[in-house]
Amino acid sequence: MRHLLSAGDLSRDEAVLLLDTAEEMRHIAERPIKKLPTLRGRTVVNLFFEDSTRTRISFEAAAKRLSADVINFAAKGSSVSKGESLKDTALTLQAMGADAVVIRHQASGAPKRLADAGWIDSAILNAGDGSHEHPTQALLDAFTMRRHLGDLDGRRITIVGDVLHSRVARSNALLLATLGAEVTLVAPPTLMPYGVESWPVETTYDLDSALAKTDAVMMLRVQRERMNAAYFPSAREYSRRYGLGVERLARMPEHAIVLHPGPMNRGMEITADVADCDRSVIVEQVTNGVAVRMAALYLLLGGAREAAAPASTPSATTEGQA
Amino acid sequence: MRHLLSAGDLSRDEAVLLLDTAEEMRHIAERPIKKLPTLRGRTVVNLFFEDSTRTRISFEAAAKRLSADVINFAAKGSSVSKGESLKDTALTLQAMGADAVVIRHQASGAPKRLADAGWIDSAILNAGDGSHEHPTQALLDAFTMRRHLGDLDGRRITIVGDVLHSRVARSNALLLATLGAEVTLVAPPTLMPYGVESWPVETTYDLDSALAKTDAVMMLRVQRERMNAAYFPSAREYSRRYGLGVERLARMPEHAIVLHPGPMNRGMEITADVADCDRSVIVEQVTNGVAVRMAALYLLLGGAREAAAPASTPSATTEGQA
Amino acid sequence: MRHLLSAGDLSRDEAVLLLDTAEEMRHIAERPIKKLPTLRGRTVVNLFFEDSTRTRISFEAAAKRLSADVINFAAKGSSVSKGESLKDTALTLQAMGADAVVIRHQASGAPKRLADAGWIDSAILNAGDGSHEHPTQALLDAFTMRRHLGDLDGRRITIVGDVLHSRVARSNALLLATLGAEVTLVAPPTLMPYGVESWPVETTYDLDSALAKTDAVMMLRVQRERMNAAYFPSAREYSRRYGLGVERLARMPEHAIVLHPGPMNRGMEITADVADCDRSVIVEQVTNGVAVRMAALYLLLGGAREAAAPASTPSATTEGQA
Repeated sequence: MRHLLSAGDLSRDEAVLLLDTAEEMRHIAERPIKKLPTLRGRTVVNLFFEDSTRTRISFEAAAKRLSADVINFAAKGSSVSKGESLKDTALTLQAMGADAVVIRHQASGAPKRLADAGWIDSAILNAGDGSHEHPTQALLDAFTMRRHLGDLDGRRITIVGDVLHSRVARSNALLLATLGAEVTLVAPPTLMPYGVESWPVETTYDLDSALAKTDAVMMLRVQRERMNAAYFPSAREYSRRYGLGVERLARMPEHAIVLHPGPMNRGMEITADVADCDRSVIVEQVTNGVAVRMAALYLLLGGAREAAAPASTPSATTEGQA
Repeated sequence: MRHLLSAGDLSRDEAVLLLDTAEEMRHIAERPIKKLPTLRGRTVVNLFFEDSTRTRISFEAAAKRLSADVINFAAKGSSVSKGESLKDTALTLQAMGADAVVIRHQASGAPKRLADAGWIDSAILNAGDGSHEHPTQALLDAFTMRRHLGDLDGRRITIVGDVLHSRVARSNALLLATLGAEVTLVAPPTLMPYGVESWPVETTYDLDSALAKTDAVMMLRVQRERMNAAYFPSAREYSRRYGLGVERLARMPEHAIVLHPGPMNRGMEITADVADCDRSVIVEQVTNGVAVRMAALYLLLGGAREAAAPASTPSATTEGQA
Repeated sequence: MRHLLSAGDLSRDEAVLLLDTAEEMRHIAERPIKKLPTLRGRTVVNLFFEDSTRTRISFEAAAKRLSADVINFAAKGSSVSKGESLKDTALTLQAMGADAVVIRHQASGAPKRLADAGWIDSAILNAGDGSHEHPTQALLDAFTMRRHLGDLDGRRITIVGDVLHSRVARSNALLLATLGAEVTLVAPPTLMPYGVESWPVETTYDLDSALAKTDAVMMLRVQRERMNAAYFPSAREYSRRYGLGVERLARMPEHAIVLHPGPMNRGMEITADVADCDRSVIVEQVTNGVAVRMAALYLLLGGAREAAAPASTPSATTEGQA
């Protein structure tokens, strides 16, 4: 792997390597000194064309835990707003020594364009591009499910909500299919993407029937700015038909878990009761997000480029005195 | 101590422990390498719902001097502005591995609500909440006074200005009383808080009589945005009656010192002459602010939680080669 | 050297020392671990009154590569916007332990005022002040030319564009003259600064004749916000008369190189073909910018102040395990 651009492009082996490496990284968080020296002297740039504090600080925490230097570059108010092209921004970051560029962009495909153009050698990590993909989110979701359900092969996962605008849904659908899971998308008719029949998923408008046999359900965030659009059901209607409350939760198999990529609208797509119940793994997803991003940075900057440090055994030595 | 939420809640012993530890930390600033390895691998998040560059960088400098990783989270433009609750923001930060959350919030009581709810294990440090409290400011003020005046028991401290809106005044009044000092508040009648008779202080409208017998005077900042309010005296009137100039300074005892929490409005509540005179300890307060915040982080993250590292003897070993 | 305020103030020896030290620093970027322990425990504050992401992250990368702690202080929304004076901001930063203050300011002369006033001991580095100077830009340009052309004594350098508003042009003209180069400024009559006859340069309106005998050409950025001003040629006219395309490039001597301080307006002052051609050193300038800023920080914080660490031999030992 040179870049992490889309969950859909990952082979099964690559996905499993990422998840297994994240498992190693997950243990770091439980040590007294939560830090590995692995990426000392490496620079990770967070190039964010859209605000996303959560994703940015998750990558920042991951990079710092690997001892990398982190530079935050919010594109607002920068050269970019003076008309600098993506190409020149990328060339500049690489020339300053960026070993990895974590990019969040409002345009679908921007990270791939950056990688395909061959302008730069830095590893590129897609941190969300338009309504296209958000691969580290899908990896952290798969990682969290695997921790609770074991191997995902044959497991049934239900993804519920505004699938049309959701890069999270798309990345999850593709990655989960690669891992052998059976994915069902549940969305209002106006929020089901055009061309979904070519995705490796089932679709339905009936949430309750899907939940009855699911191993995990992922509730998507309702984007408030879309809620008054003509294609959007009323808040009340949405919540009644597509929201997850305790009654619906009770219809799910006992072992089934609840996920949400955050931030939640409590009371809209999920009730507070469900968000905080013991079958909810929502907070754990956040913790796992740091581990998955550590794994991605490690494999792209360490494993893949330095033959001496095999990807499957991250050096666990902590630096300096313990 | 698990959290640092208010100066008023500190027992005398806790306050003295903080000040004594800050004294140790103060020496670090005089070394060639101003850094301790104490909090290596720990993460401090600055969660700022209000802009406050000064306070943020003081905490940032303190955390970095203890070798912690620092993540800045400005709530503007983040999930918070998309409607995420304080609870979910807190859960997210803890799940990402925040050992301490330094919170600045426009709502009085927000840090305490966060701590009382028991949502998170991270240590919470109040960096200013509404018009309520700003405990590290009060600690740095007490620390600075103690350095110049010795034990504060029986010392007379005068606090002058817009007490009504000042969390600095409130935190100082409470902490100084705990330390045995006699506090006098001087404010225009409209800027003296309702219920001040229950505070452990004297009040007066006559600055000159208070100054004649004071050991230290603290001039509060005039918030320019309040200056045209009906309850606010005119700028000229304010400055004449409640400002500190050289004539007034001359009426104070010779050993008495001048404090100001900054940023100053030179020419309004304090003249430039006084701000820069040798009895002003205003710049020293800033230096001491870093030491006090190091002490707070140290005690909350190190001392109180790891029995092996007694709070009273911070490890002074610098990391790596000198 | 205590500060780096202007390229014009540097003696030949100082300039050569900076360039030679940058040469050492340049090698760091090629090591597996791109980091020196030299400034561990030192704090560099980026005090930016104007947005400039490029310059800020170049200084940030430089400081981090020397193991300094970096604190970013964007003046917008800070005390400064509440009316705090430059003096009080500076005193505050120094009191917090800033060993170096990198300052970008819209007012020409602000960094010098800060240094001359003697308020603070911190080293001050000018990162661009109004239309006055941008010394590290000039140093990185000279460094880049020296790498390609050897000693600059007697070399012919052409600087083209909006010289009137360009601190880059001014700093370059002064530094290059100090280094013995012959500088020619080419600008539309309305964009040639008043008093340029006192600069150590030639001037002309005829780009082609200047290019025919130049060793390096530096294309200045057209500030889009100035393009509709009465004194500004039309975009088409500007590009035709003062832009660099492949035809013009062909008239230059074969060894001559092309520079641009970035960010470029491709198609305006420089065509994409030229920007990306093998005689363009524009990307290399960015890399060299980090090396030059490392050299400046090193000499101001390490070399000049600690006799034990001679400026000409930066300690190359990497910290901790390799």
